[in-house]
Amino acid sequence: MNYIPERMTPLSACRLGLDTHQELTIYLRQDSPVCRSEGFSALSRVLVRTEKSHMIATLHMITGELLVPGEIGFSESAWQRLDLHEGTSVWLSHPKPVQSLSYIRSKVYGNELSKQELKEIIEDIVEGRYADVHLAAFITACGDDKLNIREITDLTQAMVNSGSQIEWGLPMVVDKHCVGGLPGNRTTPIVVSILAAAGLTMPKTSSRAITSPAGTADTMETLTNVSLSLNQMRSVVEKEGGCLAWGGSVRLSPSDDLLIQVERALDIDSEGQLIASVLSKKIAAGATHVVIDIPVGPTAKVRTQEAAEALASSFTSVSETLGLTITTLFTDGSQPVGRGIGPALEARDILEVLQNSDSMPIDLRDRAVQVAGAMLEMVEAAAEGKGHKKAIKILESGAAWEKFQAICLSQGALKDPPIAPYRYELISHSHGRISCIDNRKLAKVAKLAGAPADPAAGVDLHFKIGEKVTPNQPLLTIHAESSGELSYAVEYLEDHPDIIQLLELEG
Amino acid sequence: MNYIPERMTPLSACRLGLDTHQELTIYLRQDSPVCRSEGFSALSRVLVRTEKSHMIATLHMITGELLVPGEIGFSESAWQRLDLHEGTSVWLSHPKPVQSLSYIRSKVYGNELSKQELKEIIEDIVEGRYADVHLAAFITACGDDKLNIREITDLTQAMVNSGSQIEWGLPMVVDKHCVGGLPGNRTTPIVVSILAAAGLTMPKTSSRAITSPAGTADTMETLTNVSLSLNQMRSVVEKEGGCLAWGGSVRLSPSDDLLIQVERALDIDSEGQLIASVLSKKIAAGATHVVIDIPVGPTAKVRTQEAAEALASSFTSVSETLGLTITTLFTDGSQPVGRGIGPALEARDILEVLQNSDSMPIDLRDRAVQVAGAMLEMVEAAAEGKGHKKAIKILESGAAWEKFQAICLSQGALKDPPIAPYRYELISHSHGRISCIDNRKLAKVAKLAGAPADPAAGVDLHFKIGEKVTPNQPLLTIHAESSGELSYAVEYLEDHPDIIQLLELEG
Repeated sequence: MNYIPERMTPLSACRLGLDTHQELTIYLRQDSPVCRSEGFSALSRVLVRTEKSHMIATLHMITGELLVPGEIGFSESAWQRLDLHEGTSVWLSHPKPVQSLSYIRSKVYGNELSKQELKEIIEDIVEGRYADVHLAAFITACGDDKLNIREITDLTQAMVNSGSQIEWGLPMVVDKHCVGGLPGNRTTPIVVSILAAAGLTMPKTSSRAITSPAGTADTMETLTNVSLSLNQMRSVVEKEGGCLAWGGSVRLSPSDDLLIQVERALDIDSEGQLIASVLSKKIAAGATHVVIDIPVGPTAKVRTQEAAEALASSFTSVSETLGLTITTLFTDGSQPVGRGIGPALEARDILEVLQNSDSMPIDLRDRAVQVAGAMLEMVEAAAEGKGHKKAIKILESGAAWEKFQAICLSQGALKDPPIAPYRYELISHSHGRISCIDNRKLAKVAKLAGAPADPAAGVDLHFKIGEKVTPNQPLLTIHAESSGELSYAVEYLEDHPDIIQLLELEG
Repeated sequence: MNYIPERMTPLSACRLGLDTHQELTIYLRQDSPVCRSEGFSALSRVLVRTEKSHMIATLHMITGELLVPGEIGFSESAWQRLDLHEGTSVWLSHPKPVQSLSYIRSKVYGNELSKQELKEIIEDIVEGRYADVHLAAFITACGDDKLNIREITDLTQAMVNSGSQIEWGLPMVVDKHCVGGLPGNRTTPIVVSILAAAGLTMPKTSSRAITSPAGTADTMETLTNVSLSLNQMRSVVEKEGGCLAWGGSVRLSPSDDLLIQVERALDIDSEGQLIASVLSKKIAAGATHVVIDIPVGPTAKVRTQEAAEALASSFTSVSETLGLTITTLFTDGSQPVGRGIGPALEARDILEVLQNSDSMPIDLRDRAVQVAGAMLEMVEAAAEGKGHKKAIKILESGAAWEKFQAICLSQGALKDPPIAPYRYELISHSHGRISCIDNRKLAKVAKLAGAPADPAAGVDLHFKIGEKVTPNQPLLTIHAESSGELSYAVEYLEDHPDIIQLLELEG
């Protein structure tokens, strides 16, 4: 038990209407007697207790008149976690030291983390006992390849156990994941449509973007409702065999959602947290068979075949121990897939492929049928070497497009993706052949233009590597929802003329 | 230049009176048009510009009515950094990516940081371009021994260059530093008094506690004014040959002060940041000769002779390259020094030693004359082997006590340390001999009792290792300024009966 002095008179809860995102924050007047009696100062970690519940929060001090004496202010996240009402009685005291923080220090010193230590770290994260700086330290300490296979396996299991887990009561539930790093590589909605149309069960939960201009959930949100409850998801999947939901709303692996917020701010990747993040979501979602797509290219997330094979081997080892069957695919990561980069622009590409439109981006279609084909073969819904052909047939027959519409409608909507009002075209000044496209910098342009927060924002790429360009042809178009963001993306583009490189040809 | 859309109407600055400590924070209404036009969301990093200045800050959103439309709120630190007035015009835009954050990512992947990269990291920290999560990532990425000697040297130089530097115009300026980890080891004020009385120049700047119950600045603040400007410090040193100031108020190595705040929250040590922190302060303060005291013991910061020698070797290598002469001393780190642990209790011990009181803690005196003696020998103010004797003579003659009083008065005050109203005594229940004292857990008790924020709080230790104890003798006394803190420290003490271990003897 945490210590609460009996004599202490309670403070009165006050909703300040401050959104500090995930960091649970409370506000006290600097002259508050409890600061004196308990020795709290700005940024102290404080145990906050009501008659029904408790949490650890970060203290910000108020030097002005936002609170009257005897009041305590709450950020929105803290208010919701404690389920407060105006005037609820609140007691403050010192929290016991969070034991699991010492495990993170131990990791910094190069020690292995035990199963129990990883379990406690994840539980404390889910319980909100970590401030953002603690999450940052955990992510950094585990960065690069600092977790071994056993640690990644135990981390994955701890993340699965920390949230909801879906039981489908079926012998086979399929899923896919792309390791990312490739702008526009939005095959998932197409793959789900093909496989559900083939009679497989594919209850897909996707994440929002971490460091990229769009995640599948961001893209699907421009087309339908993706914030489904577990019951809603179950009902869509029972009816259609598949769904395209945002994972965060069903609390699968909730620690992952908290870590991702800080990973985004730090832009630090780690093999261990990548694998744990991916597999914990799949296992919690009840998947039995998963295809992992690893794009490889000089500016993709995985840059060499060697790194891709090492990552695939780690994915396979961890999956085996956890009873999950996986296949890893290495795909071309040398350039963006499709034309659009950004939620709505990628949604448009997806619709063109599903509708077998003449103008569809062929590379996106090719990758989707490759992934779908690999899955059909893995679960023996197609003979070896025949999966690809079967996937194409389902797509060309219109069955996938019908299935996609049915899934969206079952999720509550089938919308047209929004269109951005502000545009800028980068024009070619010479004859040439596209020799190189920098994925990372292109993603940066799309993000500066507002993606993924502004769903219509992003970049439309008009050429692929190897294609010929003549003067005055647009190479790419930036889309933005505001002129400020458009100008900023243009400024970055002008500062980085190497984003699209041309091999000049004789006019 | 950072991009500001010309058309943008300014926001009006509003001081919210929120103390978020060092993290520069701004507040916007969620329905603010600038959030829409620029795509800002909670925790976005935002470039904030007035006609005179600019900074990068973290955005918190306001969902309530704390601001009227067109206003922007500021935390106290942000308000002061931009030197604002109510209603000052403020423009917001996207900051350029902070380039030096990519160097931290590179460090996570195991790469060496170049001189230029370390320089940019430190400059960006001083300019406030890092959020707390970024500082946490930097500290964690450099944790343990992840910086090599060349990197530590360049980090130290970058930290020196990032702030004020004092030129004394003297061939010899002496200083000392204790690597810490030993509660109560407060020799500095005694050493300064002895050496200044011996005619040396010792302009001492000290830090506040990082993870310990008291730093020298915390302790001296119970006796005199330690927040001296550079000019005040210069005038005290010119008059008395020495001073005992807080380093933070003269902006020596200011990045260190920012890093220390987050190190405290994380409780992560790193050899590189330790050395850079210590030496950058010494060099910036104009020292030419420094004694580094490294206590070694199983529960001290440095636990083995081997680790102490490695640390001393790193200190020496970095110092040599930077033109600083140092001597390292290995001292006994097996138990606390003196009796008091906490600012005022340590101040009391210091006064007893300086006053040659019969009740003085002999071990504190012995360590102070050991350090002072080493310095006298290093600068050839005493022959080899004669420094110790000379230091004792200065102390016993009363010259050191006179010098101490003169320094304090010159700094503006000579005060009595405060006394805590709440006490708790841990009583022995058996005959025995003290066999072991856990420094870390004892420091924890003092911190839970309120030290260093409450200057009178802490622990008074009544026995040393090897001393005999009889039943009903008090082993230690906890001092607190509030009953809440006292109770919490007592609870921790009761949970950890191994803090003081007795070898039982026959009654």
